[in-house]
Amino acid sequence: MRAELVTIGSELLLGFTVDANSAVIGRQLAEIGVTVVRRTSVGDEASEIAAAVREALDRTGAVITTGGLGPTSDDLTKPSIAAIFGKGMRLDEGVLDGLRQAWIARGLGPDLPKANEWQATVPDGATILTNRHGSAPGIWLEDRRGWVAMLPGVPREMRGMLRDEILPRLEVRLRVSGESANGAPIVLSRTVRTTGIAESALADAIGPATGPLADVALAYLPSWSGVDLRVTSFDRPRAAAGQALSAAEGVLRAAAGAYAYGSDAEDLAASVLDILRSRGLTLAAAESCTGGLLGARLTAVPGSSDVFVGGVIAYSNDVKREQLGVEEATLARHGAVSEETAREMARGVRARCRTDVAAAITGVAGPGGGTPEKPAGTVCVAVDTAAGVVSERRKLIGDREEVRLRATQWALDRVRRLLAP
Amino acid sequence: MRAELVTIGSELLLGFTVDANSAVIGRQLAEIGVTVVRRTSVGDEASEIAAAVREALDRTGAVITTGGLGPTSDDLTKPSIAAIFGKGMRLDEGVLDGLRQAWIARGLGPDLPKANEWQATVPDGATILTNRHGSAPGIWLEDRRGWVAMLPGVPREMRGMLRDEILPRLEVRLRVSGESANGAPIVLSRTVRTTGIAESALADAIGPATGPLADVALAYLPSWSGVDLRVTSFDRPRAAAGQALSAAEGVLRAAAGAYAYGSDAEDLAASVLDILRSRGLTLAAAESCTGGLLGARLTAVPGSSDVFVGGVIAYSNDVKREQLGVEEATLARHGAVSEETAREMARGVRARCRTDVAAAITGVAGPGGGTPEKPAGTVCVAVDTAAGVVSERRKLIGDREEVRLRATQWALDRVRRLLAP
Repeated sequence: MRAELVTIGSELLLGFTVDANSAVIGRQLAEIGVTVVRRTSVGDEASEIAAAVREALDRTGAVITTGGLGPTSDDLTKPSIAAIFGKGMRLDEGVLDGLRQAWIARGLGPDLPKANEWQATVPDGATILTNRHGSAPGIWLEDRRGWVAMLPGVPREMRGMLRDEILPRLEVRLRVSGESANGAPIVLSRTVRTTGIAESALADAIGPATGPLADVALAYLPSWSGVDLRVTSFDRPRAAAGQALSAAEGVLRAAAGAYAYGSDAEDLAASVLDILRSRGLTLAAAESCTGGLLGARLTAVPGSSDVFVGGVIAYSNDVKREQLGVEEATLARHGAVSEETAREMARGVRARCRTDVAAAITGVAGPGGGTPEKPAGTVCVAVDTAAGVVSERRKLIGDREEVRLRATQWALDRVRRLLAP
Repeated sequence: MRAELVTIGSELLLGFTVDANSAVIGRQLAEIGVTVVRRTSVGDEASEIAAAVREALDRTGAVITTGGLGPTSDDLTKPSIAAIFGKGMRLDEGVLDGLRQAWIARGLGPDLPKANEWQATVPDGATILTNRHGSAPGIWLEDRRGWVAMLPGVPREMRGMLRDEILPRLEVRLRVSGESANGAPIVLSRTVRTTGIAESALADAIGPATGPLADVALAYLPSWSGVDLRVTSFDRPRAAAGQALSAAEGVLRAAAGAYAYGSDAEDLAASVLDILRSRGLTLAAAESCTGGLLGARLTAVPGSSDVFVGGVIAYSNDVKREQLGVEEATLARHGAVSEETAREMARGVRARCRTDVAAAITGVAGPGGGTPEKPAGTVCVAVDTAAGVVSERRKLIGDREEVRLRATQWALDRVRRLLAP
């Protein structure tokens, strides 16, 4: 099945809002075997909405819209599309009653504002799609030319309605049309996450796309976190797609070796916590240039408290000395950004927090603060364990935010490589 | 001037990539008086690209595309659009030489791969747009029907080329056509950021859109950071737009009073650092459930080191006791999530880091860890100064990430309200 998206809202064209809904819809449709062939965004004008939807309907007969279902006079999606189907509008008492009850339940007052009646006004002959996450219901209109499903623009409401109302309907249609059952071709992808290895070295290790890699599309996606390897299966039924991706993932993991740390959206912090937990080890952190970002990443993972106990944000030299026991002589001789200081930070935070493992980061995040010997991006990382302390120094690339993120990723990876079996 | 965007790439339709480029382009065009009336996204197929661009050209005569300029066989933007203009393709020796020199300068080897020649292949009669931030040059094609500007899809390269090559050209055209000079209507917006006040209370304080507010569009944008108030001027020349926004901003700031902390993208952490800096005060932080996120936000601001010295991430009770001096009896009697513990954390970190001000956060970020008395989202914040310690307890809404962000915002706001003149 081919479909189109039409996203509605002047905010999209003015750039006030990034159209993230389109990506969510495109991905979920691809996973059930619906191919989005075009996406169009138009402003809040009835003629523009009607033109874009009519053209999309003519091309594919299957159109999903988002936005323009709110209570204000800007919200013209319903009448504009009703007109394409030659339908008038009517007030739906059932929808109105639901809006009224929700209004009262939220403690917003005894009377639904008059403006909200517009949200209960629907095209004649439309199927009403329940909105469990907000007030505006969705609308499904259909005739011999095809169907248009209208979803709200609020991301949480859109996602709920897509899952609850749209995907099940489309799966039924795919089955009925014989596109689905066992044989429907879908798009599925999987990502192997790597860190600590350059894209070119990874490409050399993976080599040419033979064997299982010949059956999928491989994308190298470099970022501050490392290089993600995304494999995508196009035009296979679900079971075969899963097999093709698993086989490709096996090849990639073997090629990437210890540089691979996770799958899909898994954060390296979660992998490191898992490794430490499985070995019964605790962790502390001492952070200078990252200022708490390493701790924030670790504690973003639910359940991190059984491994990560905390640590010290040692942004100033006084705090490095007094709260971590870094020697004045070390700071004077080697500077705050040095492997020597990083090692004393790691040892200090491990001793004070009484953990098995400690990581320390000190560096020049930039844009200011660099010197010819230690330019912005210079970062030192140390990891202390009962076996002793290790440290490294690197020049990381990127702006302040990226240098800080790269520094936390590198520190996590240093812990991982020290402890991984 | 009316224009359209066509963003090219199967990744966009499959939802692997969110089309953030469109928002950037829409915003910057609006600010010089170009109205984007439609945006279309199509996949990497020549027929789809040609159809979308031809239709856009027919409607407005002014089209910007992104994507599909890379070195691979998927990159079909140039020949697809050249065909619309009836042009063939030719290898440009100047572009090829530039690619070769850049390749060597980056240390990638002595020979440019054959595939990269495709990036030096351009439509006959095209104007080549320099890419200072990457390898693929942009292309400008034009005839009596109008123009198409082709930009790369990589965001950094796209932004550079938009700024360096596209906006200046469009400004010249607007002047020549008489749309610009003093009188061209543009879209400009400004945002007043507030925190600590509910949207409904803010709406009551602002009241009906009379006076300067009648001349602009006002949007309430609630999020974890508070409620942003965005005012937009449509269809006014630049000077008048600036005046209308300044007048509206004055009304909003007066209505929001002390709840307003900044403009546009300014982070509350930067405002708090400015207030502390102007009064010559230093700051430390003690964080439990936020695990370093407050420190990370403060140190994300360049130059924060003259105010923020660091602090303690006290995720475990042992660290709270041993590194901050929280009493065992306090933890036993009131629990780790209590105003009493927050107060001792704030006092402890201020004494140990020897700062003028200290903020402490402890809470249940969720999803687990809640109890009937202290459900997930329960957070206590304390601020200690020479004048003594203050504390509050709240139930914050949202998931783990949102509760943590809201907790840091609230702690920053507590410091701000304590110290603001």
